[in-house]
Amino acid sequence: MKIVALAGGVGGAKLVDGLAQLLSPENLTIIVNTGDDFKYRGLYISPDLDTVCYTLAGLANPDTGWGRNGETFQVLENLQKLGVLKWFHLGDQDLATHIERTYLINEGLFLSQITRSFCHSWGVEYSILPMSDQPVSTMVDTIDEGELPFQEYFVRRKCEPKVKGFRFAGIDAAVPAPGVIEAIMQADSVVVCPSNPWVSIDPICAVNGLCDILATKINVAVSPIIGNRTFKGPAAKMFIELGIQPSPLAVARHYKKFLTGFILDKMDEKLKQEMSVPTLATKILMKDRDDRRRLAQDVLNLIQSLQ
Amino acid sequence: MKIVALAGGVGGAKLVDGLAQLLSPENLTIIVNTGDDFKYRGLYISPDLDTVCYTLAGLANPDTGWGRNGETFQVLENLQKLGVLKWFHLGDQDLATHIERTYLINEGLFLSQITRSFCHSWGVEYSILPMSDQPVSTMVDTIDEGELPFQEYFVRRKCEPKVKGFRFAGIDAAVPAPGVIEAIMQADSVVVCPSNPWVSIDPICAVNGLCDILATKINVAVSPIIGNRTFKGPAAKMFIELGIQPSPLAVARHYKKFLTGFILDKMDEKLKQEMSVPTLATKILMKDRDDRRRLAQDVLNLIQSLQ
Repeated sequence: MKIVALAGGVGGAKLVDGLAQLLSPENLTIIVNTGDDFKYRGLYISPDLDTVCYTLAGLANPDTGWGRNGETFQVLENLQKLGVLKWFHLGDQDLATHIERTYLINEGLFLSQITRSFCHSWGVEYSILPMSDQPVSTMVDTIDEGELPFQEYFVRRKCEPKVKGFRFAGIDAAVPAPGVIEAIMQADSVVVCPSNPWVSIDPICAVNGLCDILATKINVAVSPIIGNRTFKGPAAKMFIELGIQPSPLAVARHYKKFLTGFILDKMDEKLKQEMSVPTLATKILMKDRDDRRRLAQDVLNLIQSLQ
Repeated sequence: MKIVALAGGVGGAKLVDGLAQLLSPENLTIIVNTGDDFKYRGLYISPDLDTVCYTLAGLANPDTGWGRNGETFQVLENLQKLGVLKWFHLGDQDLATHIERTYLINEGLFLSQITRSFCHSWGVEYSILPMSDQPVSTMVDTIDEGELPFQEYFVRRKCEPKVKGFRFAGIDAAVPAPGVIEAIMQADSVVVCPSNPWVSIDPICAVNGLCDILATKINVAVSPIIGNRTFKGPAAKMFIELGIQPSPLAVARHYKKFLTGFILDKMDEKLKQEMSVPTLATKILMKDRDDRRRLAQDVLNLIQSLQ
């Protein structure tokens, strides 16, 4: 079975790791949100891409899910001594990625080429594609502080400002990165990982042409919400602030334009009757690599039943 | 006594440290060669400036004389894993300097402003000035391999190619950094540190107007050569390849346009009779901080005798 996964950061990377435990590299392509990308002291940082790559390379920090395992912070500590504000917890190993990516982008290479080269260096055989080679910046519109760039909202303001909407700056000029459309066309199904619908999956779907092609596929989403809460990140808080009761149902409705199958947690099994697409209830919290594989198997089983 | 020191890297930084042990910040300004500056993976690296700054900040690696004390190399190791050739032994603490300098230069700040800001952060009260804010690149013309950028000659080719000349690319557009001319004008004397005459001191003197103003001052040089050898670096080898017998005498002749006093090693005391300027023979090898201070005191004593 050929699968394309749409992923944001930590939650997405976990399910992607589960899928990679079951599928060979020619049968799994991962399309990753780049709306969170930002520059820090001139370095081009692509948090979701790195999280997915590090996870599949076995280099990720198992405690945080992001950043590198056994990381040190000499560069950051010395930047602080030079008076640089420390917003971002960037480690030394991780910084090598950012330095080299910045260098190659300034040399004129595309993010997709760079990501392929890095994956090759890290021994990752799966295709990990940025959603677009053109820069797209997720802007969070807030009630009290106006529009904030995503990382400013997420890291510096710790998701505290109340949101009233989102804008993906640059999206009009963005086209899918090479291989994105082809991978979706050839896939038996698209898996929407349990990432934030508003700021991880929506930017991917907003890239020109992606939504249209998704509408032609079997698309299975895994809820990032259990009960009325997320495991991690501000998705539930965003639903509330946008006037929507957070729940797996709200997530499924969010994806209604293209959704053909849904997976929610056993705890929310009663909601199956309200779902308008075939829905599987299973354990969706991924605490270890076995959980990831089991959930990925459930996803593949649901897809098979939909074919 | 108000002193300006002209310095390259390690040898220059040592004498500067000696002078700083004897002179207060308002009485010592250091003008540093930037002809060795280069870019590595897009990062702007200024080796001599950093060596002088780290030395006066007490941050320098006491074993090498360059780089940082207690340094780690996580970034470099991870750059290598991404396929980047490791020419330069750049540590993590050191890289923070290069990242921030690159960021600020790209923001439009001048190297002299950045250096002042970094020195302030590191607690260095002495004025350390780049020779110029405009980029100057020392090119080493070699017999067999044509013209090589300095770092390619020095680090990658380990000074092996035979030299036949030097060119300071960009020198025509370079003007002295703010404060350079003023510091020399106000100084009682200029100290030419025991740095490489060809590639550390000559680039400084080649900056527009510097040579002319030096000619109006008391200028005391410390030989970087003892007998026919240097303590470090390719100066002696360069003299030979350029057809000149390396010796303190050759160094003094090299500086003849502006030299008013000279210091050579006790071992070379017999050469004093051949010198055309007042010359002091003393122990010029600086093995520890006391040696640096003693040599600096000898320099100040010679200057006093010349006033």
